[in-house]
Amino acid sequence: MTNIETNQDRLWSTLMDLGQLGETEIGGCNRVEFTALNKQARDLFCSWAKDAGCEIFVDGFGNIRIRRQGKNPDAPVVMCGSHLDTQPTGGKFDGIYGVLGGLEAIRSLNDAGVETDAPIEVVVWTNEEGYMFQPMMGSAVWTGMLPLEDAFAMRDEKIDFGICEGLDRMGYLGDAPFMDRAKVACYIELHIEQGPVLGNAGEIIGVVDATQGQHWYDLELTGVEAHAGPTPMPVRKDAMMGMSRIALEVKRIAEDNMPACGTCGFAEVFPNSRNTIPGRVKFSADLRHPNPKKLAAMDMEFREVAKSITDEMGLKLSLSEFTFIKPLPFNQPLADGIEKAALATQKPYRRMFTGAGHDACNIARFLPTAMIFIPCRDGISHNELEWAEADHCKIGADVLVNTLMAAANGQITYE
Amino acid sequence: MTNIETNQDRLWSTLMDLGQLGETEIGGCNRVEFTALNKQARDLFCSWAKDAGCEIFVDGFGNIRIRRQGKNPDAPVVMCGSHLDTQPTGGKFDGIYGVLGGLEAIRSLNDAGVETDAPIEVVVWTNEEGYMFQPMMGSAVWTGMLPLEDAFAMRDEKIDFGICEGLDRMGYLGDAPFMDRAKVACYIELHIEQGPVLGNAGEIIGVVDATQGQHWYDLELTGVEAHAGPTPMPVRKDAMMGMSRIALEVKRIAEDNMPACGTCGFAEVFPNSRNTIPGRVKFSADLRHPNPKKLAAMDMEFREVAKSITDEMGLKLSLSEFTFIKPLPFNQPLADGIEKAALATQKPYRRMFTGAGHDACNIARFLPTAMIFIPCRDGISHNELEWAEADHCKIGADVLVNTLMAAANGQITYE
Repeated sequence: MTNIETNQDRLWSTLMDLGQLGETEIGGCNRVEFTALNKQARDLFCSWAKDAGCEIFVDGFGNIRIRRQGKNPDAPVVMCGSHLDTQPTGGKFDGIYGVLGGLEAIRSLNDAGVETDAPIEVVVWTNEEGYMFQPMMGSAVWTGMLPLEDAFAMRDEKIDFGICEGLDRMGYLGDAPFMDRAKVACYIELHIEQGPVLGNAGEIIGVVDATQGQHWYDLELTGVEAHAGPTPMPVRKDAMMGMSRIALEVKRIAEDNMPACGTCGFAEVFPNSRNTIPGRVKFSADLRHPNPKKLAAMDMEFREVAKSITDEMGLKLSLSEFTFIKPLPFNQPLADGIEKAALATQKPYRRMFTGAGHDACNIARFLPTAMIFIPCRDGISHNELEWAEADHCKIGADVLVNTLMAAANGQITYE
Repeated sequence: MTNIETNQDRLWSTLMDLGQLGETEIGGCNRVEFTALNKQARDLFCSWAKDAGCEIFVDGFGNIRIRRQGKNPDAPVVMCGSHLDTQPTGGKFDGIYGVLGGLEAIRSLNDAGVETDAPIEVVVWTNEEGYMFQPMMGSAVWTGMLPLEDAFAMRDEKIDFGICEGLDRMGYLGDAPFMDRAKVACYIELHIEQGPVLGNAGEIIGVVDATQGQHWYDLELTGVEAHAGPTPMPVRKDAMMGMSRIALEVKRIAEDNMPACGTCGFAEVFPNSRNTIPGRVKFSADLRHPNPKKLAAMDMEFREVAKSITDEMGLKLSLSEFTFIKPLPFNQPLADGIEKAALATQKPYRRMFTGAGHDACNIARFLPTAMIFIPCRDGISHNELEWAEADHCKIGADVLVNTLMAAANGQITYE
């Protein structure tokens, strides 16, 4: 089998051309879903797809599929993709790179005159960023996790219309049937890492074979508000000190269970006056791990330690779970296929999990799925400073095209 | 020397009568300085003082002095007092008890037909609570710590007049000269504890021989804001975790240096989003100790530990001192005199320091000063639930009257 190489200059100029739409003064991108700017981005992508000889399908939720036909049009489709919308202060790579990397894969296959057995499709998922409504909607509707009528019934206080009208305004309320999941062989998503792991290690490719699972907790501690002067330490019931101890346990539990993550991102103190011992605090805690058993053990340890700290300090504890997301291994043979393509680039790579959520995390519940990461500068994303290097973009696209080709030629068995 | 006893029923009914002025639905008191209600309280007190045979003086800052003459009118005056104003959601005891306890002392000396060598005065200090302008103003002006013209120049956004007009409206912009400090022997303030120490120990009298000194710090920690999912623990610069460690050091330093206090009453987290590692926090820290050397050592330890924690965690530390109040020992021979009177009651007592600020803390810089505490229920004050027991009020007044008598008869040498 030949090893295909993508065209770095073409991929980069395609990325930069699309990044013009909504470009911010400091080089970021503001191209929220349902806006005129994102309609332009969708149009531009479709025109490129047409030039590349693809068929174009838009389904009833605005998801765009472009298809490069295979020798056997009835063979299960090999699918890749991501999204074109951005956060209001986003960048030119998050999502876009996965879509245009897929387009570059098709263009490179065309250049090389390679015909694959199965068709290859690149999908643009609607409203991944969820600046309005909620994130990762296109894949949620497609997989059936979110019924279409529920999605259309949603409202968002930032706008006075629903998703159906929003798609119609852009001209992307399509009439193509939703792609039959039974006719899809696998899904691969190419993306910037949005974290610092690859960059810090000097690695160019992440072979992503799992998602983190996640417990999001809401905590409230109630003690006794009192004057900070005349109240001796032994009689205090200081909610701030209780929160501090629990926060450090979140950190310790994560550090004891690497590669776990532990975060307390939100905190409020009452009455929040320097001369008063806090009688109450509210805060969030977040524990993540890619391994279900490990995560369950962390959850149990956290609940026990929060209870024992608050018992010891005479604080009342209210602990509720805001969200629980199960850890989800991706498809290992598909990840092995990505690793094989990564090896062929002769660049440093690692197998890793994704810390952030992606459409791939929805799709992985139903289909063989894996992801490919490249580094982004300083691990920064969802930020106008988000950046990726042109040569890294090319190497990631190389891994994608060769994995797509292998999959479309039946060289990957998903078990 | 005879031991004088005060009249519990008279003292209690006097307290309850004055507490009618501004009484709230749940039994607290709302009688802010410069209001018509507090004018009524001043008037009522003056009428009682007149009935008790006292001369009444109102100085140019509205401080009221009532004098029970001594055999030797030129002997340095023995002074006690406190204040009649309350917080908007205050109680019937904070301040008022010290004033009416002094009045009860005079009444009891009258009943017993005791003539003291030196005159005895009870002072009502203007605007101790500082709900408007600032706290402890009457004693600050009297001692010269706050020049009269500066006090009169102050404005407060809650009202459209200054203090001079406020006093004039109440009829308490007096023309008596400010009492000559050189003609005052000592100052004693009787007060509810405003903390739980006596109540928890089952003690009735606090012989207060010192104030706490106090360091108030403002801290800001700057780390790196990042996505809570894809950012591994070892590369994080999490300002929330830095704050948590420093807060627990505040607690530990205080606990290692009892009877020190350590508090972080105020905290703000940025951007305060559950899915983002906090890049910045602002918080207060408060360390108190009655001993100057101990407090200085705590200050040094705190600064070192804050620096070493932030250095270790890669956080930028900004630490500034918002306020520093030196610890101030009260006059020990005067406190010994109070202890002698406490012993005579045969009730449990302790020597202690005051955690809260009082007019006595200003006056102690210039004159032999000490305080007498009685318990308040659950240590609660500055609250409509503030409460003291009638028999405790009587015992505190017993200690006051016998100390005043000893002092006014030259039995206390202040060194």
